[in-house]
Amino acid sequence: MAESDVKVLGSWSSPFMLRARIALHLKSVNYEYIEENLLESKSELLLKSNPVFKKVPVLIHGDKSICESLIIVQYINEVWTSGPSILPSDAYERANSRFWAAYIDDKWFPALRRVLVAEAEDTKKEAIAQVEEGLVLLEEAFRKFSKGKAFFGGDNIGYLDITIGCFLVWIEVIEKYNEIKLLTEAKTPCLLEWVDSFSSHGAVKDVLPEADKLAEFGVKLRAKILKARATPN
Amino acid sequence: MAESDVKVLGSWSSPFMLRARIALHLKSVNYEYIEENLLESKSELLLKSNPVFKKVPVLIHGDKSICESLIIVQYINEVWTSGPSILPSDAYERANSRFWAAYIDDKWFPALRRVLVAEAEDTKKEAIAQVEEGLVLLEEAFRKFSKGKAFFGGDNIGYLDITIGCFLVWIEVIEKYNEIKLLTEAKTPCLLEWVDSFSSHGAVKDVLPEADKLAEFGVKLRAKILKARATPN
Repeated sequence: MAESDVKVLGSWSSPFMLRARIALHLKSVNYEYIEENLLESKSELLLKSNPVFKKVPVLIHGDKSICESLIIVQYINEVWTSGPSILPSDAYERANSRFWAAYIDDKWFPALRRVLVAEAEDTKKEAIAQVEEGLVLLEEAFRKFSKGKAFFGGDNIGYLDITIGCFLVWIEVIEKYNEIKLLTEAKTPCLLEWVDSFSSHGAVKDVLPEADKLAEFGVKLRAKILKARATPN
Repeated sequence: MAESDVKVLGSWSSPFMLRARIALHLKSVNYEYIEENLLESKSELLLKSNPVFKKVPVLIHGDKSICESLIIVQYINEVWTSGPSILPSDAYERANSRFWAAYIDDKWFPALRRVLVAEAEDTKKEAIAQVEEGLVLLEEAFRKFSKGKAFFGGDNIGYLDITIGCFLVWIEVIEKYNEIKLLTEAKTPCLLEWVDSFSSHGAVKDVLPEADKLAEFGVKLRAKILKARATPN
């Protein structure tokens, strides 16, 4: 199957979309990127390709649609086997990578999202504390996984780099907007250093969104979520 | 590493624990099962083995702990490679299995749980409707995956059989308790037939909990959850 048969449906502001694109870049796969406007209506192609969740990203590979960002990353790793593996080759390390990825998506990201959409100051403070606690856990995980190298994946960007790295600009936006520091020399020195290595990597740097543009989008997204919250169907 | 180095920390009422045990049975791995009493306090071993989530199941393999049921199932499949593979060998089918497993855990199971803990009749009705809708989607998925055979995995129990099958007795309990039928000849004929094949399979039948005992536990669990809900910390 020709590589030009590969498409990604995404939205520029979606951290999850970044996962699919970074994985494709790591594997040097050519693809077409199709932008969805999530604040407006969803395209027919998106609704047809992901009828269950109706969300980006979707990877279209020939006549196949693959949904859910981490499933897409695993699919890319399994189909394009040339180049460094995105998941560790050892079964236990692979299980550990999947564990921390589940932690990030199921526990840590919901707290990050709550910082964005919290209305009461108390709720926001609590969410910020949870995000910070999570980052301390991830700092420890980084030490174990990286074994003194630049990435969770060692010398190369791996599964956890992609999983957490896709939120970096959102972290930056939340830090700026709330005048706080989530990543600090005192608590997360390794992650601070990793941010630089990750953001400047060739597979990453050209797809990260601009922080100011993302902040502007964040304000609109917050307004939309608060409006939906205030208007139960 | 000797197979007797394998332990499962579980709780008899936990559907997620079943996943780990069924996968070990499919791979004919000998293991020690250690029961946790989740309504009382958690053991030191559990807290040490799963410090992040503090939940069962945990698979202990020698000096390694693996947490989160679907990660455990994948680990078992990758480490004990003899016997039929639990995940499909084709990358796209594997991605699809992971997708439906994510659907079950992230969308369908939360609705099933809401049926158990709903207080208002409306909330319960809505949750029941979501569970039923989900089962219709899973009926369609079954037709695609099983290709006319007995299981989602074809001739053998696979990833999706384990993922959804672990909830069968909970479905039975909810049906009985609410005097409803979630699985029906009209809407989910294939799943109804699959229930029999799955429940009577050698890797499954001896670990499924008794429905009456589970119903009794369900009442206690519901009371505990409602009490916690009424007493914010």
